Amino acid sequence: MTTLDAWIDAHRDAHLDELKALLSIPSVSTAVEHAGDVKHAAGWVRDRLAEAGLEARVYETEGHPIVYGEWLGAEGAPTVLIYGHYDVQPADPLELWRNPPFEPTIESTPTGDILVARGATDDKGQFYCHVKGIQAHMATHGALPVNVKVLIEGEEEVGSDNLEPFLREHAEMLSCDAVVVSDTPMHGKGLPSITYGLRGMAALEVTVTGPSHDLHSGLYGGGVRNPLNALAAMIGSLHDDEGRITIDGFYDDVEPLSDDERAAFVALNHDEDAFRAEVGVADSPGEAGYTVYECITSRPTLDVNGMWGGYIQPGFKTVLPSKAHAKISCRLVPHQDPDTIAKKVAAALEAAAPTGVTVEVTLHHGASAVIADRTGFAVQAAMRAQSRVWGVDCVFTRGGGSIPVVASFKNILDADTVLMGLGNEDDRLHSPNEKFGVENYFNGIKSTAYLLEELAAR
Amino acid sequence: MTTLDAWIDAHRDAHLDELKALLSIPSVSTAVEHAGDVKHAAGWVRDRLAEAGLEARVYETEGHPIVYGEWLGAEGAPTVLIYGHYDVQPADPLELWRNPPFEPTIESTPTGDILVARGATDDKGQFYCHVKGIQAHMATHGALPVNVKVLIEGEEEVGSDNLEPFLREHAEMLSCDAVVVSDTPMHGKGLPSITYGLRGMAALEVTVTGPSHDLHSGLYGGGVRNPLNALAAMIGSLHDDEGRITIDGFYDDVEPLSDDERAAFVALNHDEDAFRAEVGVADSPGEAGYTVYECITSRPTLDVNGMWGGYIQPGFKTVLPSKAHAKISCRLVPHQDPDTIAKKVAAALEAAAPTGVTVEVTLHHGASAVIADRTGFAVQAAMRAQSRVWGVDCVFTRGGGSIPVVASFKNILDADTVLMGLGNEDDRLHSPNEKFGVENYFNGIKSTAYLLEELAAR
Repeated sequence: MTTLDAWIDAHRDAHLDELKALLSIPSVSTAVEHAGDVKHAAGWVRDRLAEAGLEARVYETEGHPIVYGEWLGAEGAPTVLIYGHYDVQPADPLELWRNPPFEPTIESTPTGDILVARGATDDKGQFYCHVKGIQAHMATHGALPVNVKVLIEGEEEVGSDNLEPFLREHAEMLSCDAVVVSDTPMHGKGLPSITYGLRGMAALEVTVTGPSHDLHSGLYGGGVRNPLNALAAMIGSLHDDEGRITIDGFYDDVEPLSDDERAAFVALNHDEDAFRAEVGVADSPGEAGYTVYECITSRPTLDVNGMWGGYIQPGFKTVLPSKAHAKISCRLVPHQDPDTIAKKVAAALEAAAPTGVTVEVTLHHGASAVIADRTGFAVQAAMRAQSRVWGVDCVFTRGGGSIPVVASFKNILDADTVLMGLGNEDDRLHSPNEKFGVENYFNGIKSTAYLLEELAAR
Repeated sequence: MTTLDAWIDAHRDAHLDELKALLSIPSVSTAVEHAGDVKHAAGWVRDRLAEAGLEARVYETEGHPIVYGEWLGAEGAPTVLIYGHYDVQPADPLELWRNPPFEPTIESTPTGDILVARGATDDKGQFYCHVKGIQAHMATHGALPVNVKVLIEGEEEVGSDNLEPFLREHAEMLSCDAVVVSDTPMHGKGLPSITYGLRGMAALEVTVTGPSHDLHSGLYGGGVRNPLNALAAMIGSLHDDEGRITIDGFYDDVEPLSDDERAAFVALNHDEDAFRAEVGVADSPGEAGYTVYECITSRPTLDVNGMWGGYIQPGFKTVLPSKAHAKISCRLVPHQDPDTIAKKVAAALEAAAPTGVTVEVTLHHGASAVIADRTGFAVQAAMRAQSRVWGVDCVFTRGGGSIPVVASFKNILDADTVLMGLGNEDDRLHSPNEKFGVENYFNGIKSTAYLLEELAAR
């Protein structure tokens, strides 16, 4: 037992009380009526960063404030930037919560106590582990083993509109050797993991127009191309029977999965039966030649997220509609350029359009996939820290979603990000009864404390 | 100039005033608040039938009343049943009307005066031609050349739910040698036409279910079959590149168009450029090997009338939806059975479904196509009557829509229906500023008067 452990264990009640205080602030960033709460949360976080021993201040933005703190006394040692967010998702539907979402409650479960509240794991609980891990060093040694910068924003749940401008404006202040983010889950209960790859996204909206106005399908049907039939066929043409995307050049920049990655994936023992049971399907065909885990984390996709046109109310109206619409997005893997892919999808749709209709495509904002060098010093430090805390080997995983800020850190600060998950996959983020395991919380504090030590061993 | 013509011409003002009075009653059958107006219209029609010299009464139904009148004094002569409807479509959007829809207004146009009001052509103006044509005979000869039964319902615009039960219950009272309906347009201005074929309809709704709940497309995309992608591909598979329907057995019962029919269609000089200009398309590919006129009147179709699923609001939400829906209808040609076709479409959709989704199909009520023998005595009588009125040869046309009551007359009364259009194609039925040409009205009265004469010449 180190002095760090002793300090962390000795102050468990205070750690919990502080996190509960933070979770009691309804800092819902999307809700205008909670703007005061968001501001209050920012000030509260700044005060805790200062208590932990950092130089801390609040930066106003055009939206919600950004909290920043730093301690730069470790001359010659690496500098790590810790990122998190103090804003939370709305809590509705309120009636599904066992307790009010902003009255944090400890509940006992067969697998240990949990702290239930909106933001418990996303991301107040996880980023607060970092605050307390830093404080553990300052309280026991009066110093940190590395230079630390902490950036906690208040707009992650509404698109982080003001974060990129802030990174650009303060690039020098924020310069660092690595970024650490705890906003992803561990691979399994008690199995720590580092997410080293995330998928990107290309999104577009397509509108197919046939006749200039809705027509009676009896009087005109057969003589006019139906835009819904046309759009359906166009979308149908984008995949083959084996789940592969047929768009010309779609896979051009996709780097094949290496043998060691695939072997490591197998070692993760992803449970496909449990996956199918969770989502309620009998089959999960995916792309031929790939496991479900590979399909959902490491292969690109093309999904229709929404499609509509014609008469969609109860009953029947035999309309031959003027327009058909679809929202389509691709999840991308490293090296695929969002803009290039969006244009290829648009071109494929236009090429697949039959005569008698016109096609209009609007490209939406995309995000690049990211992949970290698994041999990087910060990644390796996080692996060692997590293995020490949990007593088992930390594993590498890839995630299927996108965390756009990771690409921003790479592009603006030229820094790789370590995604060190501290919560569990079933923490119900964005859902009622969001939770964070109490053991995960205390272990998360230790993970940060150890991480700072391991980073110093560069 | 016959005495019939003289009487009809001498009373033009009265004919117009009476039709205006009928058009002033807002007998909107779908609107609960107009139930009293619908009832009022029924009584008004009964009174006019009685004035014309028929035995007339109102039959209550579970919905709106049916008006019936008869004159059966022509012993040994054929009996004709005239069908029409006194209910009308709602008038909204009101702001697009040049005058209030239930304040009938005469307007001058370069092609003659028009009477503008809701129901002007559909169907008050057209069925009232029959009332006045009958009255012309009674007023000038004190008798009709044939036996006449008149059936005017008040629920045509809401599905005629109570008409079939009425036909079954009163089959003996309604027995006849032919039915005449004026609820279709003439082929062109001043070009009278008899519609001898109508398409039927088979309709169904399909729901494709993938995961049991909506999923995050980042965390699950690639591993779960997307029901929107699946439904799009399924629908896309129902047509080939030449506009033919690929469903097994779909065309089995379709009788090929005869050479003389196709020759007659060519003689109609259907203007495809004008058709494309009207609907606002550059191309009207249709089914390979058929003209646009053939495609929209005499060939079966499969159209998606509505399709929806996922996120369809402004902006983007990368949801992988649980369900995708489509409403699909086929226009049918004679000999295709609606139920058989609906089941074949359902089977084709199920066969085209990929793994990982389930398919649920709900069949809707269908309608048989109808085709009349062009040599029938009533059809030929109508041809002669229309040719006499307009001074040009009446032509045969087929219609692409469905008039389900025509099949009911065939099935229940064993009578063929003559569709004798009195209005024009641009009469804007169901739309704002619905109209009926004043000349069409007066000529329509003559058409009926002549038709009764011609029917007597059986």
